Amino acid sequence: MVKRKLMFLALVATALLVWSTTAFAQEVSLLAEQLFRYHRGQDVFFMFMLVAFLMLFIKRYEWGVCLMTLLILSVSFPFYFAVKTIYFAEAWNMDLIILGVVCAITLVISAGMFLGQVKTWQYIIIALLFVVAYSINEWFLFTYLQGVADMGGSLLVHAFAAYFGYGMILSLRHKKIMDAPMKTTVHSVSFVWLASMLLWILWPSFTTGLLAPDQVIGGMLITYMALMGSTVITYLVLLAIQKKIDPLVYTYAILAGGVAIGSTVDLVGPWAAFAIGLLAGLISSLCFVYLHPTLEKAFGVRDVMGVHNLHGVPGIVGGLLAIPFAGSVQGVAVVGTFVIAIVTGLISGLIMRAIGRNEEYILDDSESFPMEDARTAESISIRGSGVSM
Amino acid sequence: MVKRKLMFLALVATALLVWSTTAFAQEVSLLAEQLFRYHRGQDVFFMFMLVAFLMLFIKRYEWGVCLMTLLILSVSFPFYFAVKTIYFAEAWNMDLIILGVVCAITLVISAGMFLGQVKTWQYIIIALLFVVAYSINEWFLFTYLQGVADMGGSLLVHAFAAYFGYGMILSLRHKKIMDAPMKTTVHSVSFVWLASMLLWILWPSFTTGLLAPDQVIGGMLITYMALMGSTVITYLVLLAIQKKIDPLVYTYAILAGGVAIGSTVDLVGPWAAFAIGLLAGLISSLCFVYLHPTLEKAFGVRDVMGVHNLHGVPGIVGGLLAIPFAGSVQGVAVVGTFVIAIVTGLISGLIMRAIGRNEEYILDDSESFPMEDARTAESISIRGSGVSM
Amino acid sequence: MVKRKLMFLALVATALLVWSTTAFAQEVSLLAEQLFRYHRGQDVFFMFMLVAFLMLFIKRYEWGVCLMTLLILSVSFPFYFAVKTIYFAEAWNMDLIILGVVCAITLVISAGMFLGQVKTWQYIIIALLFVVAYSINEWFLFTYLQGVADMGGSLLVHAFAAYFGYGMILSLRHKKIMDAPMKTTVHSVSFVWLASMLLWILWPSFTTGLLAPDQVIGGMLITYMALMGSTVITYLVLLAIQKKIDPLVYTYAILAGGVAIGSTVDLVGPWAAFAIGLLAGLISSLCFVYLHPTLEKAFGVRDVMGVHNLHGVPGIVGGLLAIPFAGSVQGVAVVGTFVIAIVTGLISGLIMRAIGRNEEYILDDSESFPMEDARTAESISIRGSGVSM
Repeated sequence: MVKRKLMFLALVATALLVWSTTAFAQEVSLLAEQLFRYHRGQDVFFMFMLVAFLMLFIKRYEWGVCLMTLLILSVSFPFYFAVKTIYFAEAWNMDLIILGVVCAITLVISAGMFLGQVKTWQYIIIALLFVVAYSINEWFLFTYLQGVADMGGSLLVHAFAAYFGYGMILSLRHKKIMDAPMKTTVHSVSFVWLASMLLWILWPSFTTGLLAPDQVIGGMLITYMALMGSTVITYLVLLAIQKKIDPLVYTYAILAGGVAIGSTVDLVGPWAAFAIGLLAGLISSLCFVYLHPTLEKAFGVRDVMGVHNLHGVPGIVGGLLAIPFAGSVQGVAVVGTFVIAIVTGLISGLIMRAIGRNEEYILDDSESFPMEDARTAESISIRGSGVSM
Repeated sequence: MVKRKLMFLALVATALLVWSTTAFAQEVSLLAEQLFRYHRGQDVFFMFMLVAFLMLFIKRYEWGVCLMTLLILSVSFPFYFAVKTIYFAEAWNMDLIILGVVCAITLVISAGMFLGQVKTWQYIIIALLFVVAYSINEWFLFTYLQGVADMGGSLLVHAFAAYFGYGMILSLRHKKIMDAPMKTTVHSVSFVWLASMLLWILWPSFTTGLLAPDQVIGGMLITYMALMGSTVITYLVLLAIQKKIDPLVYTYAILAGGVAIGSTVDLVGPWAAFAIGLLAGLISSLCFVYLHPTLEKAFGVRDVMGVHNLHGVPGIVGGLLAIPFAGSVQGVAVVGTFVIAIVTGLISGLIMRAIGRNEEYILDDSESFPMEDARTAESISIRGSGVSM
Repeated sequence: MVKRKLMFLALVATALLVWSTTAFAQEVSLLAEQLFRYHRGQDVFFMFMLVAFLMLFIKRYEWGVCLMTLLILSVSFPFYFAVKTIYFAEAWNMDLIILGVVCAITLVISAGMFLGQVKTWQYIIIALLFVVAYSINEWFLFTYLQGVADMGGSLLVHAFAAYFGYGMILSLRHKKIMDAPMKTTVHSVSFVWLASMLLWILWPSFTTGLLAPDQVIGGMLITYMALMGSTVITYLVLLAIQKKIDPLVYTYAILAGGVAIGSTVDLVGPWAAFAIGLLAGLISSLCFVYLHPTLEKAFGVRDVMGVHNLHGVPGIVGGLLAIPFAGSVQGVAVVGTFVIAIVTGLISGLIMRAIGRNEEYILDDSESFPMEDARTAESISIRGSGVSM
């Protein structure tokens, strides 16, 4: 009987051990998984801010871009968070934080298209409208449809941003924006180089943000290979067709590999990724040089930052490249994203037009900031202390 | 007997297994915990450097700020480290590295107040004095008192920095600093936007640096929500009272949510954090616009960077907001930090005054750098090679 | 019999448990180890980009440095990756990604020496030649030799970069580069401060990139202590011998501690590291001020960025400092790296000379970019749309 009791004891101990070890392991693993995501999530916030500096080349319109960026993040993230946790009653975790800033980054990319065409305070309203539009597309891609490949956001982020923006500029179009000067300075363009190069290196945190832990290292390699492909080809293409490199085309088009790899980041190998990058860089460069002026003339609109050339076409191409892996549902996803984006963009643009377009200070910091002195004496008065600086 | 031996064997195996699994799990867990802190710690070093760029707007006084920042870090960190490991014989680990750079960051925030009022080489002496003062307050808050809520440093860092600095400028005050010009250029202010926006995104690494692993993700969300609150409200407040946005108020006051959430980062939920951010941004904006000139006139001192408006008042407010959670000890902590900071600051300022204030090159890079050519031809001679550049 | 069966069951269960726990723990541990490296690896990519901004001070030669940097990364990384995975049939993992970007960073450091002395498109050829040369030295240090101490790359990266570059400029030397103007502007130098300070804080990710997890925190502390040593001493030395601080010497020499600690990052304690930093900063400063012009005159070559002063001499010193730990093999490693670097550099330089040096646009962005307008009106035409900006 003693033996039987001992035996029983041993079995109970074993069972407890199995249970506790597994439970412990899972708990650590879940927590560790969330913690591993902390820095990739923070990197996406970092990228959000850098998108502002990618747009900082217009002389006398630098601070306004930063202000707009900060407003968009600080309105769209809490609203997206409220929609998910209150309306849909989801619990929040690291994934939801990442999803929130991905929503915000999609809007700030999109805003590069209609920059200066609305007033600064109106970005608050646009942020609210955009969260609704974006949520519809998010639901369409991942709840209504099943099996869409888009872990790195070619469709959810890049294509949606570009075509929502296109809808906006079609609704907002007026002549003044076509005539607004876009001068640059050497240093304003140097900020663009900085932003582009830092976005380049942070890009894997964006494409791997929601991947399972064992896919992250591979996703990093795949993303970098795609970016290297677009970086090399953009140089060669621009050299071939323009002899000189337009810095504001180069700094943008080198990122096209990152845009286009978004739908296949967990599906292809490093050399296929390099090839996708070559293709995306080639297409994006050609869009900047040839498609951009053609479309502007055809529709009478200005895509201020050339968003369509970096995010629109390469995003669609990236989405289509996943068809061999995901099947026909991927084609439906591409078409659906295009339609939802352009329709919600058109509607949002009409609403903003009804509220009142920006017609006085187009691409001009003096809308929001005291710039009178800056124009004359390269110095401005700051702080409430009345000190002339 | 065979069975008994087998039984014994099984029990021993089980016991060993329990012991080894637990030991293994704890070892991994401790190491992993430290490694998870590596990047948050590095982020705090990153923030340290960015504080310099937040102060880089004064024309002809950009490099001097960077030089001062590097000297402060490279003197105060090793001295703090020596005090802890040699004098107090503590073992060093990741936490101590973070505590060391937090001490250094407190000083560089504080230095924003008396910038240009002491000579560059004197920051070496100030760093030594400050480590002693800071260590007294650290001991007061977390050893002498028990149960103070301040995981994100509203009191330890922000309030202490501001009132130590105020003590310094009260001791150092003289007329010349009041008359020093503070001109800006468009690009010098763009560096401030960059620094402010990157500090914004790195802030959660500061507030969660010493939190337990399972509190980190929550702390990140809470911190971002507080920052979003202050970012939105600062825009609205400045628009309401000034019509135009002063960029050097805006880029500072949007960070007030991060300052004020420091004491409650592990105690409140996301919407309470958003509300704290709204409150902090409102107060900080009003301090910049109204309190700042009033205090400067009343005391005859210049708070060069407006440290009191961003770190002083919002730091105190953040500390007070934890009273419902921590009880009356929190009130003692707030008052004690204020007193220790201002007294040690006054004493340090008197010592520096005895050594000799900076009266020749106030807010002027030509104190440390060969700027003669830069003033005339926008070019300076660099490197020992004698090449005129 | 029942008991025996139960006993057997218990034993099997225990055995399975032991096996599964260990297997699970190891799998998590391996994956976690790789994931812990993700961000340190990304930091090295970040540092790669920052090396460009460290070289951004030459007026009218800013964008060309960025372009060169991006081309080098996007050609050398895939080629190194191909050599390892295809020619040597190695499996790729996080370590290989880090090794690849470390190879690329070595080339971009080296390129600081012969910057502007070759044409931009020629960096593509140089990248291919360099990967071969670098791989020979990598094989020599870690396969041919055994027990060389160089976890943080004093020899593999810094010394090799400097002497490969020296070989290049000896082969490429011509009079025009000696006469090329190197003007600076206040803001171009501010970018150098930014780059130097961010490289400073990211440096531990470089030196600990390949360390075992339990050595990483120590490696971080050791690296920072070395950097603090060189930061303080550089200020004091330059103050003593030049009275004013040359910003382009200071921003470079403060990094010498990071260079010199590369061979002993896992071997010394924090105060020894501080002392190594003091030594390295002292030597580097003196090299910039005295050795640099002497060598340029003696050999008739221009080391454009002073690479020899920051990476060459401090790299060699760092390698030699590991002799007490690694023995005489370390001496062989130092000499061998020097010889391999300078010979492969000379050969590569002769090949590039045969292809044709850059003699038209030396240190001038107009080689690659449309700068005509920028020179006159501080504005340039951008984008293919024909808009004059």
